[in-house]
Amino acid sequence: MDMMQENDLVVVVYREKKYLKRLEKDKSFHGKGGILPLISAVGCPWGTRFGEYEVFRPTIEDIIMYGVRRETQIIFPKDAFFICSKLDLKCGSKVLEVGTGSGALTLLLSRVVGPDGKVVSLEKEERHHKNARKNVEKLAEFPNTELVNKDVNDFEGEGFDAAFVDIREPWLPLARIWTFLKGGAPTGFIVPTTNQVSEILQALRQGFGDVEVMEIMLRRYKTLAARLRPEVRMIGHTGYLLFARKLEMVREISLTASSLP
Amino acid sequence: MDMMQENDLVVVVYREKKYLKRLEKDKSFHGKGGILPLISAVGCPWGTRFGEYEVFRPTIEDIIMYGVRRETQIIFPKDAFFICSKLDLKCGSKVLEVGTGSGALTLLLSRVVGPDGKVVSLEKEERHHKNARKNVEKLAEFPNTELVNKDVNDFEGEGFDAAFVDIREPWLPLARIWTFLKGGAPTGFIVPTTNQVSEILQALRQGFGDVEVMEIMLRRYKTLAARLRPEVRMIGHTGYLLFARKLEMVREISLTASSLP
Amino acid sequence: MDMMQENDLVVVVYREKKYLKRLEKDKSFHGKGGILPLISAVGCPWGTRFGEYEVFRPTIEDIIMYGVRRETQIIFPKDAFFICSKLDLKCGSKVLEVGTGSGALTLLLSRVVGPDGKVVSLEKEERHHKNARKNVEKLAEFPNTELVNKDVNDFEGEGFDAAFVDIREPWLPLARIWTFLKGGAPTGFIVPTTNQVSEILQALRQGFGDVEVMEIMLRRYKTLAARLRPEVRMIGHTGYLLFARKLEMVREISLTASSLP
Amino acid sequence: MDMMQENDLVVVVYREKKYLKRLEKDKSFHGKGGILPLISAVGCPWGTRFGEYEVFRPTIEDIIMYGVRRETQIIFPKDAFFICSKLDLKCGSKVLEVGTGSGALTLLLSRVVGPDGKVVSLEKEERHHKNARKNVEKLAEFPNTELVNKDVNDFEGEGFDAAFVDIREPWLPLARIWTFLKGGAPTGFIVPTTNQVSEILQALRQGFGDVEVMEIMLRRYKTLAARLRPEVRMIGHTGYLLFARKLEMVREISLTASSLP
Repeated sequence: MDMMQENDLVVVVYREKKYLKRLEKDKSFHGKGGILPLISAVGCPWGTRFGEYEVFRPTIEDIIMYGVRRETQIIFPKDAFFICSKLDLKCGSKVLEVGTGSGALTLLLSRVVGPDGKVVSLEKEERHHKNARKNVEKLAEFPNTELVNKDVNDFEGEGFDAAFVDIREPWLPLARIWTFLKGGAPTGFIVPTTNQVSEILQALRQGFGDVEVMEIMLRRYKTLAARLRPEVRMIGHTGYLLFARKLEMVREISLTASSLP
Repeated sequence: MDMMQENDLVVVVYREKKYLKRLEKDKSFHGKGGILPLISAVGCPWGTRFGEYEVFRPTIEDIIMYGVRRETQIIFPKDAFFICSKLDLKCGSKVLEVGTGSGALTLLLSRVVGPDGKVVSLEKEERHHKNARKNVEKLAEFPNTELVNKDVNDFEGEGFDAAFVDIREPWLPLARIWTFLKGGAPTGFIVPTTNQVSEILQALRQGFGDVEVMEIMLRRYKTLAARLRPEVRMIGHTGYLLFARKLEMVREISLTASSLP
Repeated sequence: MDMMQENDLVVVVYREKKYLKRLEKDKSFHGKGGILPLISAVGCPWGTRFGEYEVFRPTIEDIIMYGVRRETQIIFPKDAFFICSKLDLKCGSKVLEVGTGSGALTLLLSRVVGPDGKVVSLEKEERHHKNARKNVEKLAEFPNTELVNKDVNDFEGEGFDAAFVDIREPWLPLARIWTFLKGGAPTGFIVPTTNQVSEILQALRQGFGDVEVMEIMLRRYKTLAARLRPEVRMIGHTGYLLFARKLEMVREISLTASSLP
Repeated sequence: MDMMQENDLVVVVYREKKYLKRLEKDKSFHGKGGILPLISAVGCPWGTRFGEYEVFRPTIEDIIMYGVRRETQIIFPKDAFFICSKLDLKCGSKVLEVGTGSGALTLLLSRVVGPDGKVVSLEKEERHHKNARKNVEKLAEFPNTELVNKDVNDFEGEGFDAAFVDIREPWLPLARIWTFLKGGAPTGFIVPTTNQVSEILQALRQGFGDVEVMEIMLRRYKTLAARLRPEVRMIGHTGYLLFARKLEMVREISLTASSLP
C-alpha cells in the first residue's frame, strides 16, 4: 500500500475547507479541529482521517485552487476542466496558451497532455511570467511546459493541435495565432464581458468555423443528507467561453446535386 | 500537412448542427446546404469549408454526442468533462466505471487515461453491455478498456485510482466498491433526484471523506456578434454530481496541542 | 360557498398541463383523463376534482399563458410578475406601456393597478393593436385600460407613475418617454440581446438614475415526493430586464462637508 | 409637481448602493460621494440628483431591503414578488400569512391587496411578532394588516382567498390551514431544503391540487454599457417555492365518454 512520506504535498480537509501543506518535520496544522503535527501523517496510508481532519493526495483542482500563487484572476477549475475537453486535448497533444497569467490553466494543460505532450504558454508581462514560472516549477507533475515571456506578436511557432487565448483583446492577434495552428485545431477564449464576446465573434468569421459561445455555472450543495440544499452564495460569473476551429481551406462553391466532381 | 483520407471519420458542421460521417466513396451528405459528395473531402486539409459545410476531425465530444448509439440516457459532455477532472484522472490512471450504460463516459475515460491507462467498466444488463461494446469497438481511440458484463457484486478488483458510479441505487454496493479502490481514491456519482443524493450522502459517512455535491449548468449563446443572446431553450437538469474520496484509515483521536506523538 | 356557474371561465388541470375553458352547455373537455362534460362542474365549488381533472378559477397566470391569443412573443409570467413589482405598481397607479404586443403584460398591469388605476398601452402596428384589444376585451377584469394604436412619437401624455417599454430600439424614443413620467418614476425595459442592453444603458445616462440590469431564471421541479428533481428542459432565456428611475432634476454640485446651504 | 417634503422617507442611491433615510432637519447623509445635508432635498422634485447622490421615493423593494429590521431570514424581493403573483392577489384580496417572521413579505402583501384588502399574519414567537409589528407600523402604507401572535393551531379563521406558509414544518398544520381557505385558494410555501419539499409534496396529496415546485434565480449585471457582464457574486439559493390550490371537493369518478350526467 502507498503511504504518505516526509515532504509529500498533501491536502488537509476540514469540513468544507481545504489547505495545501507539505509533510515537514516540526510543522503542524492549526485549525478549528485542533493541532495536527504533520509528521504524524508520515507512514499512514493516503486517505487517512485524524480526528476531524482528512488528509489526501492533492488533486489537480486542489493544486490550482490552493497551491497557485495568484497575481492575476485565474481560470477556475469549473471552466478549466471544460476548456481542456473542448480543446480535445489528450495524452501527447501540443497546445498553445496565449496569456499565461498565474499559470493555473497551464498546470492543468500540462497534466492533461501528459509526459508525451507539450504546452507552450506566452505571457508578455514579465512579472506574471516570473510568478507563473515559480508556480509551474513548484507544482507541475510533468516537465512538458515551456513558459515564454513574449507578446504573441513576437512569437513564432507551428503545428499546435489546439490553442487557448486569455488576453484582453484576443481579436487583435487572431490572424497570427491562426498561423500557429494545425488545420481544424480547436481554439478557445475566455472573456468577462459581452462586448468582448461580440468582438471575438466578429473576428472569428475570418478563418474559423464551428463557433460556440457558452457559460458554465457550477452550483454547489450543502452535504447534509437530511437538509440538502444549494449553497446560499454562488459564483455568478467567471467568464464567457468561446470555442472555434481553424478552417485551413475554404472552397467557396455552391453545392447542388451535382456541384462537386 | 495532415489531409483527410478515405474512410476517415469526420464531423460535418452546418450552422449549429453537426453530423458524424465516414468519407466513403459513393456516399454523399444531404443537408440544407446542398449535397456534398463525401469523397470530395479526401485530400483536402482537416478543417475545410465546402460551401456552407465545414468538415473537421471529430472531437471526443462529437463522438459522444453523434457517434454513440444510445440505449440508455447518456452522461452529457458538460458533466463527463467535469467528472474526469474531479476524478483527477491523467495519462496512465486506472479507473473503474460502475454502470457502463451506452458507453459514452467510458469513451471519454478511455481517452483521458490514454494508452498507458486502464478503464474497467461494469454493466449487469447484457443488452446494454453489448451495445456499449459495439460503441467502444467502433469509436475508442486506445485499446485500454475492459467491458465486463457483471453486477458490481460479482466483480473482484483492486488498486483503482478512481471510480465513477452510475447506477440507480449506488449506496447499496458502496462498501464493496470501497474495497476496489486505492486509499484516497476520488469516487464520483451521478443521480437524477434529490432523494438519491440524500441516500448517497448518508452512505458516504462510512469510509469516505471530502464529500461534495454539485450541478453543472451549461448555458449556450447564439453566435451572432450583433445580436448576442442566450439560447431560448436550455437543458435544465441532467443530474446531481457527487464526489468523495476513500478514507483508508480513520484515527479517532481528539486533537489538542499535544495530542499526537 | 362560491360555486361555479354556467359560462364561467375555468382552468382544467390534468397532471402538469392546463387548459382554459368556459363552462358551456353541450361542451366537453376531452383529454387523456377521459371526457368531462363541462356543464357537470356547474354548481360544484371552485376547486373540485372530477376523476383526474381538477377545475379551478383561472389565475392571472393561467389567463396570460392559456387565454391570450399570441401574435407576438409575449412577456412570460416570471418576468411580468417581477416587472410589476419593480415598477412599484399598486392599486391606483397610472402606468404607461410602450409596445402592447399581444397584451399579455397589459392584462397583468391592469390587474395590479386595479379598478382605481389606469393603464395606457401604445402599439404602432395596427394588427397587433387589434389582437391585443380582443385579448383585453375578453380577459381583463377591470375596465382601466386604454389601448392606443400609435407610435410613441405621436403620443402625448403626462403624469405616469411608471412606464414599461418593450420595443426593438427603446433608446430612440427615450427622451420623449421621459417627458410623460413623474419625477422618480420607475421605468423598465425588456430586450433579448446584450447589444440592446448596452445601447439602453448608454441612453439612460441622460435623465435616468438607479439603473439595474438583470435576468430572472425560473427552474421548475417535478412534483413527485420520492423522486424530486428539476425538469429536464428549461427556458434558458426570455430577455434581459432593465430598470431605471426618472431623474427630474440634476444639481451638479460637488459635495463636501459644507457644500450645500 | 410633487416635491419632497420634510420628514419624507427617501432612498439615496450612490453607485450600486442604496440607503433609506428620512428628510430630517440637522441630519446629513455621509457617504463616499461627500456629505449631503438631507434638508437640502426638501422642495426639490422626487428624482433629483445632488452631485453623485440620487434621491428617490422608496419603492416597496427599497423598504423591504433597507427599511425592515430583520430578526429572521427575510423572503427576498425576487421571491416575494413572484409569490404575490402566484397567489393571484389583487386589490381587495384577503390573504393569510403563516409565519410573519420579520414582516418583509407582510409589507408586500399589504401593498398588493391595497386599502380594500386584508392581510392576517400569524407568528407564534412573541419576539418576532413584536419586531414585525414595529416594522409594519413604521413602513406599511395601508392599515389593512392584522398581526396575530399565535401558533396556527390556535388560530380560527375562514374565507381566505390565498395563504402563504413560511414555517419549518409546514406539512404539520396543513389540514388546519385548509379549513381557513376558500375553494381553489392558491397556497404557497417556501423552504430551504429538498427534504422539506418532499415532505410538503407528500402532505399536499390530501386536499390540494395543481402542485408546482420551482426556484427563482436572479442574475444581476454590471451596468457599464461598454463592459456588460454579470455580477461575479450571486445569491445561489434562497429557497424552494411550492404552490398548490385547495381542492374543496373530490368526485372520485371514472370518466369515460358517458360517465357524468
